[in-house]
Amino acid sequence: MRVVIAGVAGVGKSTVLEEVRKATSYEIINFGTLMFEMAKSMDLVKSRDEIRNLNVETQMNLQKKAANAIGQMENVIIDTHMSIRGKQGFLPGLPEWVIRELKVSEYFILEAESAEILRRRQSDTSRTRDGESLEDIALHQEINRMFAVSYAVYTGATVSIIKNGDNGVKEASEEILRRFNK
Amino acid sequence: MRVVIAGVAGVGKSTVLEEVRKATSYEIINFGTLMFEMAKSMDLVKSRDEIRNLNVETQMNLQKKAANAIGQMENVIIDTHMSIRGKQGFLPGLPEWVIRELKVSEYFILEAESAEILRRRQSDTSRTRDGESLEDIALHQEINRMFAVSYAVYTGATVSIIKNGDNGVKEASEEILRRFNK
Amino acid sequence: MRVVIAGVAGVGKSTVLEEVRKATSYEIINFGTLMFEMAKSMDLVKSRDEIRNLNVETQMNLQKKAANAIGQMENVIIDTHMSIRGKQGFLPGLPEWVIRELKVSEYFILEAESAEILRRRQSDTSRTRDGESLEDIALHQEINRMFAVSYAVYTGATVSIIKNGDNGVKEASEEILRRFNK
Repeated sequence: MRVVIAGVAGVGKSTVLEEVRKATSYEIINFGTLMFEMAKSMDLVKSRDEIRNLNVETQMNLQKKAANAIGQMENVIIDTHMSIRGKQGFLPGLPEWVIRELKVSEYFILEAESAEILRRRQSDTSRTRDGESLEDIALHQEINRMFAVSYAVYTGATVSIIKNGDNGVKEASEEILRRFNK
Repeated sequence: MRVVIAGVAGVGKSTVLEEVRKATSYEIINFGTLMFEMAKSMDLVKSRDEIRNLNVETQMNLQKKAANAIGQMENVIIDTHMSIRGKQGFLPGLPEWVIRELKVSEYFILEAESAEILRRRQSDTSRTRDGESLEDIALHQEINRMFAVSYAVYTGATVSIIKNGDNGVKEASEEILRRFNK
Repeated sequence: MRVVIAGVAGVGKSTVLEEVRKATSYEIINFGTLMFEMAKSMDLVKSRDEIRNLNVETQMNLQKKAANAIGQMENVIIDTHMSIRGKQGFLPGLPEWVIRELKVSEYFILEAESAEILRRRQSDTSRTRDGESLEDIALHQEINRMFAVSYAVYTGATVSIIKNGDNGVKEASEEILRRFNK
């Protein structure tokens, strides 16, 4: 079984994943990190930021390669994004050529109130984040639901929306573990 | 022409379908029932509940077989679900391998106010239904719209949202009949 | 790069496209017009309205032909619809067989408040438009977002929502130009 866990920045994904990790035998793989490591081992890049400077076709091949590697693993949790909000708009985290390789059985979307997310972003001084409004955050969460549903059709995967409210990390991670029964 | 009619439990789908049946020459086929009958005739199961215990691949083959059979009929109404809400989350009613066989031309989603649906569920004592909240029902209806749209892209089918308010069965069924002009 | 710009009737798409046209070297192609011209040159129709009377397969072939022609152009803006609201419901503007040919890199959805759109429709006496309610307009805009997301998965394209408020044409067109950096 291959499970995707995603959520917008500030939703508390890392903390929830940390809790999940303690209670499961599933390996947790960050899709972007795997892509970067593959690119590095192929001498295509030295730092993670350089990936976006590769030409589109090379990036697509990297995505496909990483997805294919994960698609052959059993019992893996994929830490990734339903969509990435960039200057051009919302970019699908899992375009068709990735989905076809990944063969996901369950999509989990971590969600929280926009106001909570905004507060968490503002108090997290370790990352620079451009000032999204409450409306922007709500839109990103709405768009992410739509992407998850589109992805799910390809493999007949389930879509689960998991609330991660303030002080809710334990409940959120338990809910995830209950749903995919480890 | 192949038409899908779907809606969450308590939306009044059976009553609307009963009205539609009286006024059309289209055959109405319940997708789950067809799958069960096929499984039974293949000696795979004895009761409908056993289907979910079959291994995933067998279930997929059954779905495909049922979809393929329907895809060869003309003028049929398919009674099914945009998504099924289970313990794992929302499962697509029509994953890609089903859509490609069904070749649907129109998707109808029956909708009602969440409060109406909740009331109808509570007064229907014939079925045991787990206690979904108003918010759960609203979410399920929202997710169903997204699934319908994703499905529609494959065959260029239309998506119609039909309101089935209290005492609105007649209007709802007439609206459906008007839209696919029998 | 191929860019789609869409939006419901009354959102001010023509005015925004006019502004965009002045500032870009991209060619702007109306998908419906191209289809009509192709159909006319093949002696299939004399007027644009006749297209919908062609049989479904001929229409599909026309769509594919037009999409294929555009898919071979570089730097083109495609003026079309995410979905068309007709008597049967919402029809996908870009069904799968069109998307596969078009190879779009960015989808722009022009949006405005439903009340603004309604007001603009009412003051535009040059077109006959059936009386959609505020709720109808909101639904159409919601459904269009869903279609855009579904389309985007096929080619890993971005989805951008551009607000075109009253007196906002300049901002909307500048936002579009900024996002695809011409």
